[in-house]
Amino acid sequence: MSAIFSPISLTVLCLLVLSPTICSGSKILVVPLDGSHWINMEVILQELHSRGHNITVLRSPESWYISKNSSIYTSIDVLMLEERDKDYYNRMLQDVMDCLKYPAFLQTFCRRHVITSMFTQGHDVLARSAVSMFDDKVFMKNLQDAKFDLMLTDPGLTTGVLLGGYLKLPMVLNARWLNSGDGHFSIAPSPVSYVPVSGSELSDQMDFLERTKNILHYLQAVVEQYFIINPPYSVLFQRHFPPGTDLVSLQHAADIWLLRADFVFEFPRPTMPNVVYIGGFQCKEAKPLPADLEAFMQSSGEHGVVVMSVGTLVSALPWEVTEAIAAAFAQLPQKVIWRFVGEKPSSLGNNTLLVKWLPQKDLLGHPKTRAFVAHGGTNGMYEAIYHGIPVVGLPLFFDQSDNLFRLKVRGAARVVEARSLTKENFLEALTDVIETPCYRENIQRLSKLHRDKPMSPMDTAIFWIEYVIRNKGAAHLKSAGFSLPWYSYFCLDVAAFIVAVTGTFIWALFFMCRILCCRRSRRKTKAE
Amino acid sequence: MSAIFSPISLTVLCLLVLSPTICSGSKILVVPLDGSHWINMEVILQELHSRGHNITVLRSPESWYISKNSSIYTSIDVLMLEERDKDYYNRMLQDVMDCLKYPAFLQTFCRRHVITSMFTQGHDVLARSAVSMFDDKVFMKNLQDAKFDLMLTDPGLTTGVLLGGYLKLPMVLNARWLNSGDGHFSIAPSPVSYVPVSGSELSDQMDFLERTKNILHYLQAVVEQYFIINPPYSVLFQRHFPPGTDLVSLQHAADIWLLRADFVFEFPRPTMPNVVYIGGFQCKEAKPLPADLEAFMQSSGEHGVVVMSVGTLVSALPWEVTEAIAAAFAQLPQKVIWRFVGEKPSSLGNNTLLVKWLPQKDLLGHPKTRAFVAHGGTNGMYEAIYHGIPVVGLPLFFDQSDNLFRLKVRGAARVVEARSLTKENFLEALTDVIETPCYRENIQRLSKLHRDKPMSPMDTAIFWIEYVIRNKGAAHLKSAGFSLPWYSYFCLDVAAFIVAVTGTFIWALFFMCRILCCRRSRRKTKAE
Repeated sequence: MSAIFSPISLTVLCLLVLSPTICSGSKILVVPLDGSHWINMEVILQELHSRGHNITVLRSPESWYISKNSSIYTSIDVLMLEERDKDYYNRMLQDVMDCLKYPAFLQTFCRRHVITSMFTQGHDVLARSAVSMFDDKVFMKNLQDAKFDLMLTDPGLTTGVLLGGYLKLPMVLNARWLNSGDGHFSIAPSPVSYVPVSGSELSDQMDFLERTKNILHYLQAVVEQYFIINPPYSVLFQRHFPPGTDLVSLQHAADIWLLRADFVFEFPRPTMPNVVYIGGFQCKEAKPLPADLEAFMQSSGEHGVVVMSVGTLVSALPWEVTEAIAAAFAQLPQKVIWRFVGEKPSSLGNNTLLVKWLPQKDLLGHPKTRAFVAHGGTNGMYEAIYHGIPVVGLPLFFDQSDNLFRLKVRGAARVVEARSLTKENFLEALTDVIETPCYRENIQRLSKLHRDKPMSPMDTAIFWIEYVIRNKGAAHLKSAGFSLPWYSYFCLDVAAFIVAVTGTFIWALFFMCRILCCRRSRRKTKAE
Repeated sequence: MSAIFSPISLTVLCLLVLSPTICSGSKILVVPLDGSHWINMEVILQELHSRGHNITVLRSPESWYISKNSSIYTSIDVLMLEERDKDYYNRMLQDVMDCLKYPAFLQTFCRRHVITSMFTQGHDVLARSAVSMFDDKVFMKNLQDAKFDLMLTDPGLTTGVLLGGYLKLPMVLNARWLNSGDGHFSIAPSPVSYVPVSGSELSDQMDFLERTKNILHYLQAVVEQYFIINPPYSVLFQRHFPPGTDLVSLQHAADIWLLRADFVFEFPRPTMPNVVYIGGFQCKEAKPLPADLEAFMQSSGEHGVVVMSVGTLVSALPWEVTEAIAAAFAQLPQKVIWRFVGEKPSSLGNNTLLVKWLPQKDLLGHPKTRAFVAHGGTNGMYEAIYHGIPVVGLPLFFDQSDNLFRLKVRGAARVVEARSLTKENFLEALTDVIETPCYRENIQRLSKLHRDKPMSPMDTAIFWIEYVIRNKGAAHLKSAGFSLPWYSYFCLDVAAFIVAVTGTFIWALFFMCRILCCRRSRRKTKAE
């Protein structure tokens, strides 16, 4: 146990328990998800800290992004996920690209299955870690005694939802994804006739075959939820929760879902009263660039600059793709800033600057920026929308194809599949996006709509977090439908009852008619 | 035609067409519903006027509430509904009370049917008036040439939705009720397992029998929509709209639904991205009372005052009910202010002041007020919530039973059915509400939640109206599901296809197995 929860964690917890009066605001327990999701949590924590709240963050000891020491929160080290080697996501990318061997109709199913299967290992570790954590009575007692006012968690990692449910804390989810896909599918009715399932790469306007594909994707998600995602947690639920509890029922118990979505980007769909939309909440006006980058931007003259970044998880695209991209860039009249880790491509042009890190938001907000070459991560997409920069997308995995597809159908992006990328098709897409005005016009229209809000997404997020703290939950916004068994939710029991009653009535009527007819015919026979 | 559209209307319209530059703001065409609904529209129009918008209101020449001359809008007289005699609603009340002769389970169905049937006459007149209006080419051309920026209408009256659809104007609905019930049922998925149908007097927590009742209410609403509400408009749709248009499709085309609801009051249920909640938007802090009323309030001492008002449509309750209420009031230590029209009850006590009109909001916000005796109209319920005053409800018709039931299940009201009201049961309910602290505590908790909003409901309403004007609609918030035929919406076509394919596959498998088995058994026979 001590290997998982260090003595320091316990000391921190004890301090929290013993000195409740130290905090000027409320006590918030935060279980974030690592990687790019941490960016989405940290900006909220900064704001909550500035408003005087006392924040405690549970983190893995070997976290990539979540610092142990911070001026805005106290951290507790808890083993949740095993450290992954740097090639983990590159192997996943290879598996995703291997899906090409299947017929076109099946490829999205294959890609989704690769992601879910690789998550399965994560769920095994998460579930085992959670069992160890919940079994540690001292640790759990200390957490309970700390009397937190709120659990704030990203449900992409299950630990927060499990802990929030166990501690019976008011709970706010800072969510985009659950392991089963878009968070909406857990919380709101999702008619599959016009709500595309995550990973299906479909829009809200589907023909017959697309709707068939969407339903099959939905069935795949349901099967994965019940046969892949849920099973590892069965020991934990048996040992520490009332009968009938599962991951989904704990998600349903959340008071507010801060969904990192916006209908400028998402297709319109049903939602629930406790879902609050904060898509793009991390976006800010651009800050001035460092002098060397500013000089590079200005050196591009009237042609401007292309910014390229393919996210934090995949360190390098396949070699031949990298070479093709570099060669295409070399032929542009624009200058290019490319966030790049690895061996320098041989075809790199003089117009292209490779950097290990770039101030993405500030570059996208720079007046010289003409296009954004991106993998399609949610944060990048909202930043492109916020600053009105058209996109050339190279989707890799997760929600990236779906995200880019959303911009594409709105005429604000071109998508080039990494698996079929050549210098020619990439250059054609780039030139098209830079030179055809409609891409820029379309994304600037989205930008205008996205910014046209009664309140900024960040202020909205903070309001609802504090709302849940103030009111000790938001029970009046939670649907009563979640407490029903599935056959009652869909009224199958009532339908069966109505059919049985109607059937009996019709049968009785028929039976009576028959008796009457028989009597009449008997009388007739007698009379004859 | 001239009898319906006066020459003055045409002059007003021509002026609007010819002088578009006179308006400092946008040009908004408003089709309000008369009666208490006008209160909900007028407060918005006042705000829009103060922000420089140019407002044109269509009204019936004989309107009860909507003035012809106003400093905030220009009116156009259009015959929409026939003038109803003062006893119209009293006769409806009698018919509603006649439903008592049916078994308890059927009474809600009967009450709903009485209301819908009486609306049928209204729809006949509305549809005929609309045909006359749409046939008048000069009038319609003038409306079209006026180039309004927005249609703002209450869909409780169909004229606005019809006109907005015909003129292809961006459209905002200021809605609570459609003729088929709660506006939500037209716009959002409404699982009948936990969403009570309007008029069913059920909550979101239903047992098996209640769910059966709810489904039957839903079927009743569907049947009424298609066989009672829609038919009168068929001539209009055939003559002036593309094939396939109906009332529901025109409602679906609205850009924003400002729903006069709040989940402090409504049961949580699915909603849509273009639904904005403005329940209680007409509420304001209480203004000081006139001197005589203030003196009366103060004369009540520590006991305080009971305020009674049963709305604008029914001038008098049945005589024996009025006498019982007056007798019960006479026994209270509190003073009573009763909005009353008719013959003074013989049992009236000295503590009761009868008035023809009362400043309801200011009285409810007065510190001496202890309870509100109300019929359960939506406006009154939100005012009671806003000011935190517990309610004794005497539901008459429309949504009043449903409204009071919502406060009752939240422990903030007692309901006494007018049909079974006696001095004793009314006095018991009144005394209970005044003396048991939990009623006051519960409604004050609702009041706290209702006021805890990032933005006032009125500011929210104005923001979204101007949003639709600024962006010429809100197409990106409208669901694609509405364009699907019902069998595609529910994916019945895809389900049939999947069943057929699976069935064929199983049959083929079975057939092949049979052939193989036969061959094997033949070989065996031969071998033997």
